[in-house]
Amino acid sequence: LSGDGIEAMDGNPFEGRGASNLAGRYDLEAVRILPPIDTGSIFAPAQPNYRSHQKEHADVYGDAGTLDFNYRGLNSVVAHGEPVVIPTDATEDVVFEGELSVVIGRTARAVTARDAASYIFGYTIANDVTDRGWQTSDRTVWRAKNNDGFCPLGPWIETDFSPADAVTQVLLNGVPVVDFRTGDMIFNIPDMLARLSRYVTLKPGDILLCGTDEPTLRIVPGDRVDVSISDIGTLSNPVMAASCG
Amino acid sequence: LSGDGIEAMDGNPFEGRGASNLAGRYDLEAVRILPPIDTGSIFAPAQPNYRSHQKEHADVYGDAGTLDFNYRGLNSVVAHGEPVVIPTDATEDVVFEGELSVVIGRTARAVTARDAASYIFGYTIANDVTDRGWQTSDRTVWRAKNNDGFCPLGPWIETDFSPADAVTQVLLNGVPVVDFRTGDMIFNIPDMLARLSRYVTLKPGDILLCGTDEPTLRIVPGDRVDVSISDIGTLSNPVMAASCG
Repeated sequence: LSGDGIEAMDGNPFEGRGASNLAGRYDLEAVRILPPIDTGSIFAPAQPNYRSHQKEHADVYGDAGTLDFNYRGLNSVVAHGEPVVIPTDATEDVVFEGELSVVIGRTARAVTARDAASYIFGYTIANDVTDRGWQTSDRTVWRAKNNDGFCPLGPWIETDFSPADAVTQVLLNGVPVVDFRTGDMIFNIPDMLARLSRYVTLKPGDILLCGTDEPTLRIVPGDRVDVSISDIGTLSNPVMAASCG
Repeated sequence: LSGDGIEAMDGNPFEGRGASNLAGRYDLEAVRILPPIDTGSIFAPAQPNYRSHQKEHADVYGDAGTLDFNYRGLNSVVAHGEPVVIPTDATEDVVFEGELSVVIGRTARAVTARDAASYIFGYTIANDVTDRGWQTSDRTVWRAKNNDGFCPLGPWIETDFSPADAVTQVLLNGVPVVDFRTGDMIFNIPDMLARLSRYVTLKPGDILLCGTDEPTLRIVPGDRVDVSISDIGTLSNPVMAASCG
């Protein structure tokens, strides 16, 4: 990404960028943006990772304690601009959660918190859409957070980014409704990567969502959610009703 | 697989088999068997799926109710013959679980139980290794069942198989310790695929573990676990201690 345009590049970004094999620049408005990854594993904290969110859900999760993780399915990923489709049998309590997401750059096994930064390729944005009704009723988040399309991811991967200086903002139908310091996590990124990689070998392109802070507001068909993180960009997705089933 | 040998084939099995591009046959003993899949998603029931196992864990899961699912990470998969490595900080209560596993053959979205069979490519075997201590202490099974290497899978995919007629047997160090009718599931495979695919689009090569029955016995470094399912084969893995960390 360069200004308002895209410069075509060849090769695998995790193995170094090759020379461009396509002439010239593309206008950002003229291309269809795909999800930043299409294979690999996606992880997320299994408990709140910001203070207000933790307080709000303390009845379910207790205090912070040690960190556990959930998996997100690739089926749940949609790109910037693609719709979040709400199933016909979802509960009324479907909410957005705007989250910083780490993209792993090289194989990470039992890395230390001190070394963790060198395993990060870059950062992107997730909208961790959640059916709170299903999250309460089900034994796992298999559909509450992993229904098809419930994890918008993008719009791209920013390699030059520092969470400490960033702000996460969410706009619901253009109205600012969430604003928190991105770096104010209970479990910081190096500590999360150290704990996760102690048991789970991370691969290039794997994603770690970092959690969100309050409020996480309800969304309904017709809404649009914009998640902005300073220095990365804006992940924008419309909310739609399922057409059948 | 043909008798005691392997016939080399070209192409993607999910898109039809091409002609062999390698001459002749290979002796089964002479090849290194890899996991049956290396991309895709792996799902498993989030609750017991056989009667005795359900009874044993009723205090945790209550009665069967509706079916929920867990994700297994690809990092947890090892092939037939590869070691299950027990982390140094695992609890003493690490157990095997021998399980039939379904391999999806084509994209499945909201399939009916009646149509589900036509989306199945074949069947393989999983050893759903579980640290029961971590399963109890943690919010999710992220390391209890998804520690690196905790999901041996294989030895191959059998396309001609009927669960109704099969028996699952587990041998611990050569001694038969588990023997149950593979088809005696609480939630049968068509019903599981219908429920899962209502929310999660399944892709060719995705895997659904089907659960196990009692007993699920402890394993320690030095053990060997053989999971046999009639008409598929035997998944055999040694258990080892981690050499460090």
